[in-house]
Amino acid sequence: MNTPLQKLLENCYDDLLGDLSGKVADYIPELSKSDPKRFGISLTTLDGHIYDIGDSQFPFTIQSISKAFVFSMALENLGSNHVESVIGVEPSGEAFNAIRLTADNRPFNPMVNAGAIACTGLIVATEGKKAFDKIHETLSRFAGRKLGVDEEVYRSESLTGDRNRAIAWLLRNYSRLPENVDLVLDVYFKQCSILVTSHDLSVMAATLANSGINPVTGEQIISPYVVARTLSVMTSSGMYDYAGQWLYKVGMPAKSGVGGGIIASLPATLGLGTYSPNLDSYGNSVRGIRVCEKISSYLNLHVLSQKTDIKTCILADYGLSGISSRRSRRHEEVNILQDHHDEVRIIELIGALTFATMDYVSRAVITSSANLKYLILDLRRVSGITDAAKILLNSLQNDVEHNGIYIIFSGRTISSDDLNHIASKNTLLKNLNFRILDEAIEWVEDDIIKRYAELLNPNELVSLSEQFLLAGFTDKEIETISGLCIERNYKSGEQILFAGDSSKSFYFLLLGKVSVRLRSGIRLSSLSAGMSFGEMALLENLRSADVWADTDVRCLELTLHAYNNFTKAFPECGEKLMKNGALLLSQRLRMANAKVDILSSSN
Amino acid sequence: MNTPLQKLLENCYDDLLGDLSGKVADYIPELSKSDPKRFGISLTTLDGHIYDIGDSQFPFTIQSISKAFVFSMALENLGSNHVESVIGVEPSGEAFNAIRLTADNRPFNPMVNAGAIACTGLIVATEGKKAFDKIHETLSRFAGRKLGVDEEVYRSESLTGDRNRAIAWLLRNYSRLPENVDLVLDVYFKQCSILVTSHDLSVMAATLANSGINPVTGEQIISPYVVARTLSVMTSSGMYDYAGQWLYKVGMPAKSGVGGGIIASLPATLGLGTYSPNLDSYGNSVRGIRVCEKISSYLNLHVLSQKTDIKTCILADYGLSGISSRRSRRHEEVNILQDHHDEVRIIELIGALTFATMDYVSRAVITSSANLKYLILDLRRVSGITDAAKILLNSLQNDVEHNGIYIIFSGRTISSDDLNHIASKNTLLKNLNFRILDEAIEWVEDDIIKRYAELLNPNELVSLSEQFLLAGFTDKEIETISGLCIERNYKSGEQILFAGDSSKSFYFLLLGKVSVRLRSGIRLSSLSAGMSFGEMALLENLRSADVWADTDVRCLELTLHAYNNFTKAFPECGEKLMKNGALLLSQRLRMANAKVDILSSSN
Repeated sequence: MNTPLQKLLENCYDDLLGDLSGKVADYIPELSKSDPKRFGISLTTLDGHIYDIGDSQFPFTIQSISKAFVFSMALENLGSNHVESVIGVEPSGEAFNAIRLTADNRPFNPMVNAGAIACTGLIVATEGKKAFDKIHETLSRFAGRKLGVDEEVYRSESLTGDRNRAIAWLLRNYSRLPENVDLVLDVYFKQCSILVTSHDLSVMAATLANSGINPVTGEQIISPYVVARTLSVMTSSGMYDYAGQWLYKVGMPAKSGVGGGIIASLPATLGLGTYSPNLDSYGNSVRGIRVCEKISSYLNLHVLSQKTDIKTCILADYGLSGISSRRSRRHEEVNILQDHHDEVRIIELIGALTFATMDYVSRAVITSSANLKYLILDLRRVSGITDAAKILLNSLQNDVEHNGIYIIFSGRTISSDDLNHIASKNTLLKNLNFRILDEAIEWVEDDIIKRYAELLNPNELVSLSEQFLLAGFTDKEIETISGLCIERNYKSGEQILFAGDSSKSFYFLLLGKVSVRLRSGIRLSSLSAGMSFGEMALLENLRSADVWADTDVRCLELTLHAYNNFTKAFPECGEKLMKNGALLLSQRLRMANAKVDILSSSN
Repeated sequence: MNTPLQKLLENCYDDLLGDLSGKVADYIPELSKSDPKRFGISLTTLDGHIYDIGDSQFPFTIQSISKAFVFSMALENLGSNHVESVIGVEPSGEAFNAIRLTADNRPFNPMVNAGAIACTGLIVATEGKKAFDKIHETLSRFAGRKLGVDEEVYRSESLTGDRNRAIAWLLRNYSRLPENVDLVLDVYFKQCSILVTSHDLSVMAATLANSGINPVTGEQIISPYVVARTLSVMTSSGMYDYAGQWLYKVGMPAKSGVGGGIIASLPATLGLGTYSPNLDSYGNSVRGIRVCEKISSYLNLHVLSQKTDIKTCILADYGLSGISSRRSRRHEEVNILQDHHDEVRIIELIGALTFATMDYVSRAVITSSANLKYLILDLRRVSGITDAAKILLNSLQNDVEHNGIYIIFSGRTISSDDLNHIASKNTLLKNLNFRILDEAIEWVEDDIIKRYAELLNPNELVSLSEQFLLAGFTDKEIETISGLCIERNYKSGEQILFAGDSSKSFYFLLLGKVSVRLRSGIRLSSLSAGMSFGEMALLENLRSADVWADTDVRCLELTLHAYNNFTKAFPECGEKLMKNGALLLSQRLRMANAKVDILSSSN
């Protein structure tokens, strides 16, 4: 099967394949040799999947499309104040190669030749002779591979680039270029001669659509701030004096090059790269423009048409009522937790935390009950946190803690780096980050029990008569069982039982803690002294999970053989023990079902 | 506690409160009476929460802000072709009240007076004398309340509006206005005199940010297509010849009015409304502009800076291995399902289904195993489906079904309306929509069992000896129990047990089906003949759930009193029965834990 989008792009390609209107660029002899039949369409999604149709691997020179990326590079490396002092951001209303500057003698914007040359000049001013290498390297990072250079086109550009020389010297006249004007021009001609394919262009466009992160390599090339400014000048000036209509009709920030390439970048959605050398009277690739128009109109895609639902950012929102960590606790502890269940609130979040979702979460948080003491925010499914969300999150955190409430993060480490906008960082942060939600809940439970109960001495032995599984047994029965058991001791970290082994005994925990885990590492339960483990041996022939000692552990092992002899002598005990086991299972089942229902309900 | 955003807006308000630079509009005598100290800031979120600071309830005239909404109304009611034939969409590069048209004698765009008057003319041409009422009603729907009109300002506008009269007659000269020019002007003056507050403006702006749906009332006022076009002209022409810089720096489509109001609309994020009557030399509210600038720069909000993570749209993706519906099934049926677990794939989706997420889902789907026969898409947490997503979804569905795979929807009815772009609608759709996922899974299980097993006669009695809970009992034991039971019959739909009742007996199901449900309606399990219910009576004193007859039911009731007598006579039977019960509980617990782990894992 192909995906619907693959078919849609193929249909688009087929529809336009026969359209050979327009003509190839001829202002440089080398470009006039292009084959007008070449046609490639590539679309890169923001998870890094690339759709390629037609001549998507055919190389051609990037030309003016380089302007957008070199501008973003200048903003990123030199800062916006510096760049904006040299280059404007208003549409010029003139041809791209006009020799005209603003009233204060700056190029109108970085998408016309004057602005692009000034931009290259900024790179030359700081990098000197390494300027081209830096540009080449940066554009290659946008594409995710080392790009080539067409030396023939470069020489041809250089030989015929007298109008650009005129522009450069005019800029130099107003001190908008560094001294070495020839070097600037050389770098500019060479940057225009970098070889790309529609495949490359789609990845470069997708990097702009993806907050500056190359979706294939995962590398952050430029900051979200720079992305927004680069797409802004593409929007207002990328398609020359067609900008208002382009935004209105197509609604995708775009840039074309006379080499036949076009990029279109739809934020948070896709990057498009096309190649078709025949140009219209504006110098834009005819079929490239049509591809953008078709995709936009057929799918009603437009940068200003966005759909979101902030409410789905909260996957689940619940308290401790009927819910617990997977640590099994003694009856008295469970009672304490249920008495204080309204001191805990657990909010599981999903997706990208943005301004809108973080505000929604903060409004949910401030409606908490007056009894709230612990707020757990589970971020395991949070894919990213925008600057705005970090600011709101930090402010919320300060406020929540100011009100005497612990704020606890799980599933994703909230580092000081995440909150780097803020001067006063919270000292609690380091301690209240948990790898998984279950550990966070367990910590909260422990803390509540510590506050409301005399802490049971963890070194105190829990006798056989206090074992949950033996509740209701007479002294004589306990004494008999005791004589059948073998004492076992394990060091902290030692594995006690192995999934897959045949199950020939079960254990009463007298001292310490153990955890029952699947091979995958998922914790099924943790047990404290007074609980048993391995008791599924009474029902099943093989161990279904591993058991590990979390601390030094002392326990009593009872073999099935000995147990069976015991129940023959005390027939009622088999039913009593099985009933205690069923009671435990039913409690755990109720808890697990409650969790499923919480996670499955929609808001 | 206040939310972080509340504080941030209050800080912004405090910072700007003392800034009384600029001056109130004086071209209309009435406007010059405004109090320059008035200052209101309102922000409406896309879930309909409104933050109000300062004079957010103080009414003032909407003036030029009406242009954006009347344009959207014309597009919505008259269609884009008609509107675009009369009005352009390029920035004019001139003052808003310029008497100049494009080469083909159209106003440059709907944000200058000429374009706005032409737009009002379009409404007058179709609505005649009802034109103002229609405009008034539409703007009121954008605001979510019936707006007033300032009759004084209206008269003042009319008395002093000679330049607009000149523009109107010029338009009439080129047949861009209907005959009744005086009526058009009257409607135009009156529409500018509609009274709003910053609170209203923020709701109106949020409606544009929310795909045309008023986030407070929930009403769809205009289509997403029209939203995108309205925001486009606001972006390219809303802030006059400052548009390039405004987009670059602030990045929020905006529109101001000389009454002192400003709207800013950040798609998928927020709507902002401000009021402060002092204007700068462009005619924009000084403090309103600063509010937009501050919020944008402090939070790094920008329409072209968007963060998303398409991968989180798939909340869970799993098969039938280790998972089932909450219908308990007999051993043979469970075996069939486990043998064919790879015929089923369940994908639970979350959030707004968009172009990007639907493409991601479709790529996940086409990687399915060759054995796939049933694809369940759970949409319970899907908040909306864009046009693009509908197109891709329909194409995917056709393809999947073409490959002989059932596609099944749960949690949200996928109607023909959802797929209204497509001519050939699928006839299966109606049948394969389930209210909840569990029902969809149950249907698939039934279908698999039907295909691979001789369907067991649903009218066949399952005898006591075949009861799961009595496995391993001897004939004599069965016979004895049989003598202790009382036969009970229930009609389909009848309630058998009630949560909260004291539990004095349990039941063996001989014929038919029952469901165990919480008061909330959540199904804990469904049981077929051969299973028992109410057996928690052996562990607990009170019924914890309701039990309903799903079909006509025949069962045997065994009181605890009789059971206890029985186990005294047959001591080993207590353990056997309790062990069978524990086995059942452990199977259900394993299933529930597997589901929790699936729903809790991040992708």
